[in-house]
Amino acid sequence: MTRALFFDVFGTLVDWRGSIAREARRLGLNVDGEAFADAWRNEYQPAMQAVRSGGRGYVKLDVLHRENLDRILPRFGLQAMSESDRAALNLVWHRLDAWPDVVAGLATLRERYLLAPMSNGNIALMADMARHNGFQWDAVLGAEIARDYKPKPEVYLAGCNAFDLAPEACMMVAAHSSDLAAAAACGLKTAHIARPDEFGPGGAGEKGPDVPVDYAALDLLHLAELLSA
Amino acid sequence: MTRALFFDVFGTLVDWRGSIAREARRLGLNVDGEAFADAWRNEYQPAMQAVRSGGRGYVKLDVLHRENLDRILPRFGLQAMSESDRAALNLVWHRLDAWPDVVAGLATLRERYLLAPMSNGNIALMADMARHNGFQWDAVLGAEIARDYKPKPEVYLAGCNAFDLAPEACMMVAAHSSDLAAAAACGLKTAHIARPDEFGPGGAGEKGPDVPVDYAALDLLHLAELLSA
Repeated sequence: MTRALFFDVFGTLVDWRGSIAREARRLGLNVDGEAFADAWRNEYQPAMQAVRSGGRGYVKLDVLHRENLDRILPRFGLQAMSESDRAALNLVWHRLDAWPDVVAGLATLRERYLLAPMSNGNIALMADMARHNGFQWDAVLGAEIARDYKPKPEVYLAGCNAFDLAPEACMMVAAHSSDLAAAAACGLKTAHIARPDEFGPGGAGEKGPDVPVDYAALDLLHLAELLSA
Repeated sequence: MTRALFFDVFGTLVDWRGSIAREARRLGLNVDGEAFADAWRNEYQPAMQAVRSGGRGYVKLDVLHRENLDRILPRFGLQAMSESDRAALNLVWHRLDAWPDVVAGLATLRERYLLAPMSNGNIALMADMARHNGFQWDAVLGAEIARDYKPKPEVYLAGCNAFDLAPEACMMVAAHSSDLAAAAACGLKTAHIARPDEFGPGGAGEKGPDVPVDYAALDLLHLAELLSA
């Protein structure tokens, strides 16, 4: 029986691309907001890979985000941005906006399951984001607890262990098939959430899973329906 | 400026002694409930000391509670208790009842501060207890994050680090002067909560701090008043 749901966050619960583009415009940055968001996000996997491979000790995602920001600013002609403006801009990841179904979906799912983020984001980032959107977590699990990054199996298994649950009593919920495949390999149940617009209209957002999953839902409210059927 | 409040839990937020005594009666154990609670709790510090000293690797408090239960059952003539009954009884620590001021006090304090338990209890225990009482945490910090037990400085400092805060931006809230002294030595602010009945009427519960603290409050609602003055 499933007792806990673990959630991927960037892309699955929050619209990182649209949020960063909006914030870039709000701050008056003279850039294509979507292109800026894409460039920042494109540095994400390579930065984590240095930690996953063991070549670098664990550092929080906030640190990687900041290094990645410094890397892309010159490409957008923003190399003169001040230290304090860079530090402030880096916190945009703490206040990304949720997709429209998420707050109601999490509240419904929380009636029956323990809920935790299983994100590569660090604890402070997750805590701020929960405040910003009104998410209510039972605990903040994920990369910082495990001191490594998904899709390393240690991250999923550290989450199950923190809740004193066997992997088969936990379900990973994500909009990314690769995340679900890694969780399934650890013995967790899986649920895919369609986020076709994660990378913008017509982009590479997954309309459905391309790996076997236990549930495939259109959004979190649909997942709640599927789980109670 | 204080940004986060960290809470001791056993004794400060929840009435472990009264809750365990009630549960012992509810389960029909033929024991003096308060004496049983005291005996169980008396094994708490020595059990953690083995971990703090480095003589034993970190194990969760649930594990220590279970070992301590096995140790005291014969003293109460309960050595015949079954394995499944022992496992179920051990979970009483997950559903201890809060003191009357706590739910309203935490809700008020959460309007201005990040809140986290800074307990020797493990994550699953804290998550279950929060559900049982209606606490809302921003993250579950404490011993399991640090993989050591209070009053080791690493535990307090791991909590500050998880929230990306300097120690002086964090305040430890506890009914135990020894906990506050250890937190203050790490640079945290401190608030004492009076829990004169922690060990029963006329017991050793602290009516006030016996070390220097930043605030001394009668309960959490009083603390909220003091902090907004």
